[in-house]
Amino acid sequence: MSELRHDPINQRWVTIAMERSRRPREFQFAPPVPPYDEAPCDFCPGEEARTPPELYAVRDGGSPNSEGWITRVVPNKTPVFAIEGGIGRKAVGLYDRMRGVGAHEIIIEAPEHRLKPSEISVLQLAAALGAAKARTGDLMRDTRFKYVLLFRNYGVAAGASMHHPHQQIIATPVTPLRVTRQLRSGREYFQLKERCLFCDVIDQELATDSRVVLVDDDFVTFAPYASRFPYELSLFPRRHNCQFTSLGNDGVERLAAHMKEVFRRLDVVLEDPPLNWMLINGPNTSAGIRRVGFWSTLEHDFHWHIEILPRLTPLAGFEWGTGLYINPTAPEDAAAFLRDAG
Amino acid sequence: MSELRHDPINQRWVTIAMERSRRPREFQFAPPVPPYDEAPCDFCPGEEARTPPELYAVRDGGSPNSEGWITRVVPNKTPVFAIEGGIGRKAVGLYDRMRGVGAHEIIIEAPEHRLKPSEISVLQLAAALGAAKARTGDLMRDTRFKYVLLFRNYGVAAGASMHHPHQQIIATPVTPLRVTRQLRSGREYFQLKERCLFCDVIDQELATDSRVVLVDDDFVTFAPYASRFPYELSLFPRRHNCQFTSLGNDGVERLAAHMKEVFRRLDVVLEDPPLNWMLINGPNTSAGIRRVGFWSTLEHDFHWHIEILPRLTPLAGFEWGTGLYINPTAPEDAAAFLRDAG
Repeated sequence: MSELRHDPINQRWVTIAMERSRRPREFQFAPPVPPYDEAPCDFCPGEEARTPPELYAVRDGGSPNSEGWITRVVPNKTPVFAIEGGIGRKAVGLYDRMRGVGAHEIIIEAPEHRLKPSEISVLQLAAALGAAKARTGDLMRDTRFKYVLLFRNYGVAAGASMHHPHQQIIATPVTPLRVTRQLRSGREYFQLKERCLFCDVIDQELATDSRVVLVDDDFVTFAPYASRFPYELSLFPRRHNCQFTSLGNDGVERLAAHMKEVFRRLDVVLEDPPLNWMLINGPNTSAGIRRVGFWSTLEHDFHWHIEILPRLTPLAGFEWGTGLYINPTAPEDAAAFLRDAG
Repeated sequence: MSELRHDPINQRWVTIAMERSRRPREFQFAPPVPPYDEAPCDFCPGEEARTPPELYAVRDGGSPNSEGWITRVVPNKTPVFAIEGGIGRKAVGLYDRMRGVGAHEIIIEAPEHRLKPSEISVLQLAAALGAAKARTGDLMRDTRFKYVLLFRNYGVAAGASMHHPHQQIIATPVTPLRVTRQLRSGREYFQLKERCLFCDVIDQELATDSRVVLVDDDFVTFAPYASRFPYELSLFPRRHNCQFTSLGNDGVERLAAHMKEVFRRLDVVLEDPPLNWMLINGPNTSAGIRRVGFWSTLEHDFHWHIEILPRLTPLAGFEWGTGLYINPTAPEDAAAFLRDAG
């Protein structure tokens, strides 16, 4: 069983996956995935028995754990977190520890083994995002989990270990550091101004216009003013809302259409770049966070969004070690190239 | 000229190096350095004219900018930050901006073109660290610079762009995010307990012993309790001090001996791993930080140290995107292997 450990100097929780421990000679700085293979993988139709039993599926036909699905959610075969048991918080002198309780699920986006993010159909992506929404909502009912994170790694350089298109959900008994920072920024801003920080950022970006990549009635995607990486993008719902799970079926489909168009432009401009996207949702209010009053204005002061990070340049040690990023592409230039691809 | 931009959502400064801007097709996810070349490089003896004039050198003989040096400090040829001019802080609506004023210097550790961190002699490393100390002290007198960071990237996977052994110093008009977090942890702990957080961590590590790699009268190196990465190490001076620059010449030599032994053990156990090390010094108190009272107890509540990060596993997008690291090697196991190499 893995263990979560808290570092009082860097104010950070880390997961130590001890049963995965490797001996020193087993480390190799090499891509973690084999080259592309056309043969059916664990996530392909007809291979359902190679995954744990499905948790959720959208089907055209067929019975559970057989062919006929459009999108399919299964537990990760080798999960870092165990779903059973209590959290068991403990002090270890100055430090804090808890058991590695959580969930790790795979959303197989489509039956097709090879599909770029820009190639998936809007309806297919909407089905996958709808499944992600259903699973997120379900995991948020578990009061042991403080946070449920939805993300997608595409390409070896982005950390993908399977080629078949899939999203991932990780539910954890702690809120990730970067999410905590955003929640705090939103809360402090709201206490000062009684306005949503994220709404104000969206308004300023729409007024400035030079960093906007794509805007429709429901969503806007722009290159953030202080982008860390070339072609980093933020996608926001234009109407204020703290939870992705409150999106209706129509909203999910419009989100899928917007995302597909953003991926298409990235594909045109950057020629099929490896990328990560992460959906930053509000934290799990059923986990008793509300009770301590800390996030009491969550509905007002947080605004869910998606961060899209093409992986174009290797990170230098200095940058991820200190958090002081040096970005060689002005976000205004990135946005101009992506607008031109429209 | 580059520009520093502040993101109010993630509370982070980012450097946009606009004159380095690349067109989309110029991005390739490939190592940024050519394969190893035995031919003399810009940093080799006899090639002094290929660098900007030296800022500092330790010499056996010869005149400035000619052969005969033991260690040599030169400005970076293509600096991200410009040394001239004022900071020019400005609001851009919700955002903040300042000019990219700073310094970026290279400390050529040794005349030898090829030297692993474990191969450098103690006296040679002490000369390089002494030069780094002198340059850090000099840059800290510039009241425009809030922070002076010393670091070393070793190996292509660690972001090194030159093979010849060298350290780097970057002075910036802002304090890097991760350093700010450590300063804040130290201050809050001191306000609560009137003790140094870092001293307490050192005491607990020495008492627990299972994560200690190397200890002598002056320094201790251990695998942190909540290590993010396999074989991540922290090196602390055992006597409380907030500034590396206060180390005497004897102290610098003892630090060099301690570091060399840590590098030797990493080399034995991990077979010449790529690595980054960063010296986390106190912030630049002459930059007027003291005046606002924020770091008023700096001498008491911060403790300089070095973070050593072997680069053994590629970072998955999820991990650096969220700050929630999953480490497959327990720090107790890493420490045991490194102790056995003693």
